[in-house]
Amino acid sequence: MPLLVVGSVAFDDVETPSASRERVLGGSAVYFSYAASYFTTVRLVGVVGDDWPEEHTNLLQSRGIDTAGLEVIAGEKTFHWKGKYLPNMNDRETLELHLNVFGDFDPVLPEEYRRCPYLFLANGSPSLQLKVLDQMTGPRLTVADTMDLWINVERDALMQLLRRIDGLVLNDAEAKLLTGDENLVSAGRKVREMGPRFVVIKKGEHGAMFFSEHETYVLPAYPTETVVDPTGAGDSFAGAMMGYLAEKNNFDPVTLKEAMAYGILVASFNVEDFSLDRMKKIDRADIDQRMTAYRQMLSF
Amino acid sequence: MPLLVVGSVAFDDVETPSASRERVLGGSAVYFSYAASYFTTVRLVGVVGDDWPEEHTNLLQSRGIDTAGLEVIAGEKTFHWKGKYLPNMNDRETLELHLNVFGDFDPVLPEEYRRCPYLFLANGSPSLQLKVLDQMTGPRLTVADTMDLWINVERDALMQLLRRIDGLVLNDAEAKLLTGDENLVSAGRKVREMGPRFVVIKKGEHGAMFFSEHETYVLPAYPTETVVDPTGAGDSFAGAMMGYLAEKNNFDPVTLKEAMAYGILVASFNVEDFSLDRMKKIDRADIDQRMTAYRQMLSF
Repeated sequence: MPLLVVGSVAFDDVETPSASRERVLGGSAVYFSYAASYFTTVRLVGVVGDDWPEEHTNLLQSRGIDTAGLEVIAGEKTFHWKGKYLPNMNDRETLELHLNVFGDFDPVLPEEYRRCPYLFLANGSPSLQLKVLDQMTGPRLTVADTMDLWINVERDALMQLLRRIDGLVLNDAEAKLLTGDENLVSAGRKVREMGPRFVVIKKGEHGAMFFSEHETYVLPAYPTETVVDPTGAGDSFAGAMMGYLAEKNNFDPVTLKEAMAYGILVASFNVEDFSLDRMKKIDRADIDQRMTAYRQMLSF
Repeated sequence: MPLLVVGSVAFDDVETPSASRERVLGGSAVYFSYAASYFTTVRLVGVVGDDWPEEHTNLLQSRGIDTAGLEVIAGEKTFHWKGKYLPNMNDRETLELHLNVFGDFDPVLPEEYRRCPYLFLANGSPSLQLKVLDQMTGPRLTVADTMDLWINVERDALMQLLRRIDGLVLNDAEAKLLTGDENLVSAGRKVREMGPRFVVIKKGEHGAMFFSEHETYVLPAYPTETVVDPTGAGDSFAGAMMGYLAEKNNFDPVTLKEAMAYGILVASFNVEDFSLDRMKKIDRADIDQRMTAYRQMLSF
């Protein structure tokens, strides 16, 4: 089934302790789409300036991603993020943030997009996410991401959003910030009580936790020695997870757990190089091969 | 098969954000022994002062732990640790540390203890651990713990120890400190290259990683909402792990992974109350019940 994602499309400058890259392809909707494209048809809604090179669009299209919803604003610049990772490769500082066209992003969904059965609201303000949701005609499954900024400055809109979505994906620090609870198990349960039927807490190198009414579980990250650039790990996790659910057109507990595992594995590939460079080199068979190893790792 | 542990026996003062306890039963060898006692016969070697109450010895004996190696020094005081947990319940500060009798601990193993097939060298200086090892007549499996203090002040003795043991158990911060590597996967491999055939990195609320020549894997912690006191989690992990290996008298890859899982589960009980209070209330059936849930959590 088709999967719609609305989110940021960006140029990233990334510094790590051992290497750095400038103006590489990034953004939540880009990482999400690329990861989801291993599993299903993706429709991307985003905005860029006219500094956006055609080759990036071509790359996304080469994976079957529908970019008809990628708006190009003449005379404007694309969202630009510059960040630096600390030696632990988990924590990072934002050095520069130029929202540019993303600052006024007010997407109008093409008619056929509005009936998309699977929807992911990637990084963006809760009020923007709500505007997108308002245009949809009853998606089967709506999942959103959020971040510390919106928890701090748009809590009311976020709480409103939480009552209207099926699932929320956020990281450990955000779950603690949102609930004021330092224990991730109780924090996850508290987020779920705010509205979503399920909550996924991403723990970076420590994997991810899942919370629904009847289930609480944690799956570890796939242990990889090669961590070159963690940028987009959370978005590629969400992309693979949602892509798999859309592929199966099912989100029962068993499928959700498999989807979590796919999310973890695609994210484990993503961090092995800058931008989409590692994902560009793999296909579904590579992911499934890692899945076999992952299942073996967890069976005893 | 019998399992010998040599380590600290202590009184702990523990402060957490919500409660505190004074002079409760603690120490690495105590937590280890109690956890191991669900699986096998344990022989404890340690030292206390004459401030040590008989009831503590009785408690250990009630679990079948052989306390013949627990030396009581007249006119002296028992090792005393006072610590405080930060709100995240993972990080802690040591507020007071009185080694007392443990400072001069120089154990002479009873003759029958020297032939013990399973040996765990719990918290203590590497030179002390080496002295114990010198008294043994060829244990089948020797595993040691270490800590930041010894990595900093007795690195040479520690490196010597690492070449003589089968397994090392240490936490994530210690693995990073020992290797200078921030990536736990490569840190674990580097520790293994220092000598031990296998290495276990404990990650607290994030579970534990295992490294041998042919295997690298990670198992998540059992998600528990009730974290009252993390003191002794690492030692009860090691106790259950070693206890299970000794029970099976086997340490092939399959048994080692099951042992890791038992370690994780007994530790998950241990943190649910102060001192041994939670472990006192459970039996093997409770552990196996949690094991069933844990296996289910990890299967998909």
